Amino acid sequence: MTRQEMLYEGKAKRLYRTEDEQVLWVEYKNDATAFNGKKKASLDGKAELNNEITSLIFTVLEERGIPSHFIKRLSATEQLVKAVTIVPLEVVMRNVVAGSLARRLGLEEGTPLKEPIIEFYYKNDTLDDPLVTEDHIALLDVATREECQQLRTMALHINEVLKALFAELGVDLIDGKVEFGRDADGSLLLADEISPDTCRLWDHATGERLDKDLFRRDLGNLQAGYQNILSRLRGAHA
Amino acid sequence: MTRQEMLYEGKAKRLYRTEDEQVLWVEYKNDATAFNGKKKASLDGKAELNNEITSLIFTVLEERGIPSHFIKRLSATEQLVKAVTIVPLEVVMRNVVAGSLARRLGLEEGTPLKEPIIEFYYKNDTLDDPLVTEDHIALLDVATREECQQLRTMALHINEVLKALFAELGVDLIDGKVEFGRDADGSLLLADEISPDTCRLWDHATGERLDKDLFRRDLGNLQAGYQNILSRLRGAHA
Ligand SMILES: Nc1ncnc2c1ncn2[C@@H]1O[C@H](COP(=O)(O)OP(=O)(O)OP(=O)(O)O)[C@@H](O)[C@H]1O
Ligand SMILES: Nc1ncnc2c1ncn2[C@@H]1O[C@H](COP(=O)(O)OP(=O)(O)OP(=O)(O)O)[C@@H](O)[C@H]1O
Ligand SMILES: [Mg+2]
Ligand SMILES: [Mg+2]
Repeated sequence: MTRQEMLYEGKAKRLYRTEDEQVLWVEYKNDATAFNGKKKASLDGKAELNNEITSLIFTVLEERGIPSHFIKRLSATEQLVKAVTIVPLEVVMRNVVAGSLARRLGLEEGTPLKEPIIEFYYKNDTLDDPLVTEDHIALLDVATREECQQLRTMALHINEVLKALFAELGVDLIDGKVEFGRDADGSLLLADEISPDTCRLWDHATGERLDKDLFRRDLGNLQAGYQNILSRLRGAHA
Repeated sequence: MTRQEMLYEGKAKRLYRTEDEQVLWVEYKNDATAFNGKKKASLDGKAELNNEITSLIFTVLEERGIPSHFIKRLSATEQLVKAVTIVPLEVVMRNVVAGSLARRLGLEEGTPLKEPIIEFYYKNDTLDDPLVTEDHIALLDVATREECQQLRTMALHINEVLKALFAELGVDLIDGKVEFGRDADGSLLLADEISPDTCRLWDHATGERLDKDLFRRDLGNLQAGYQNILSRLRGAHA
């Protein structure tokens, strides 16, 4: 498999074509961004950390019955994935109040939810990724109502498996964002990445933040937090 | 029935107790506000217009099978209503893209929707009345999932009846906001007001705005627009 022309450069990774049109080559970048790109930095080692963390997580999810686009890790910063057509929704799973949920509803960060909740955000940088309802999603023709139901069910399942995985490692999964794509025959498949860039992860014992809030809120060294997560995942997957 | 102490002063009306604890006395005000109170004015005649328009609309809705809190109009600016415990949700019905939907989804104002959509906003001035999903509503304990389903069904029915009523008068119902309350035995009942303050109403032939956007967007004389709506409703209900 060889890396061919670049298809897309995002904030966190670059996607390249390969000679197999069903396979993409992903290269993680060191860039950290927050607040829809308004805060930016390049952080040494972040690419390696997210590439390995995402690879380990997708591998464990697969073992636990949740397929994804992940094929294999190629190098410190690269991996192969199945090409899909991304559904332009960020599907957010929440177990504990944090971030925009705290702000939207005036609830205190850290409050556990009685049951997990799912939110959909429309992936559109110009509009600042707005919260959308299933009526909006149908109106935008981004997914059918049946697909919304499927996305919700899949996200709740992913949340349960991730929550259990992290609990085994002494980490609380506060919330997380996943993306899905449609494969060649239109089936929905978990795609993109799952890492401390896309999940809030708090040390269960100390409450220490081990995720992108380290950068967003200047709470400490991002790489140290991500390395902490990676070491625990490596231990579990040894 | 006599008017007793004031219970609540809102932006558009005052609510008073009566000697019957199941009945409230409503007095409409001339105040116009927009953008969560950031734009304000006192507009002569607005109280009379909204009091009569709301009374006529609730009367027609009742005739067409939709009960509400409305009991009777008492004077130019006053009416009696059934006391309810307001569900703190603004239930928005939309037939054509306008206002915040245009901004949220980047759609052009005036685009007809293939099917009406319902949105829920949490009535909370501090939070700026945020859009909420049914998961948020359950989390906030504002309504159960079954009640959300009921509110949606009731709002869609109200929308159909209002749309037909206005269509008979040569007016397009673009969107509207309704509120519901729980009566003594917990049943949901349409409450608050339905007027050009709470609905976008466009003349079908000319597209002329006959609603609060006249004030919000400085498009013309508010009272003239509301009087136009009132005259058509009076004609229909003569
Ligand atoms: N398997 C896949 N096939 C096609 N596209 C994918 C796949 N997995 C992820 N993507 C898309 O590739 C891009 C990944 O880049 P990155 O995460 O850097 O984007 P981003 O800066 O977050 O921008 P965006 O707002 O587009 O998500 C995203 O648009 C993501 O949806
Ligand atoms: N039948 C009723 N019983 C009890 N309260 C009612 C009833 N009908 C309407 N209300 C409430 O009375 C108030 C009406 O006042 P007004 O429309 O001026 O409020 P507002 O400025 O819009 O403020 P709010 O943000 O509270 O709606 C609203 O809070 C409304 O929900
Ligand atoms: Mg991304
Ligand atoms: Mg009001």
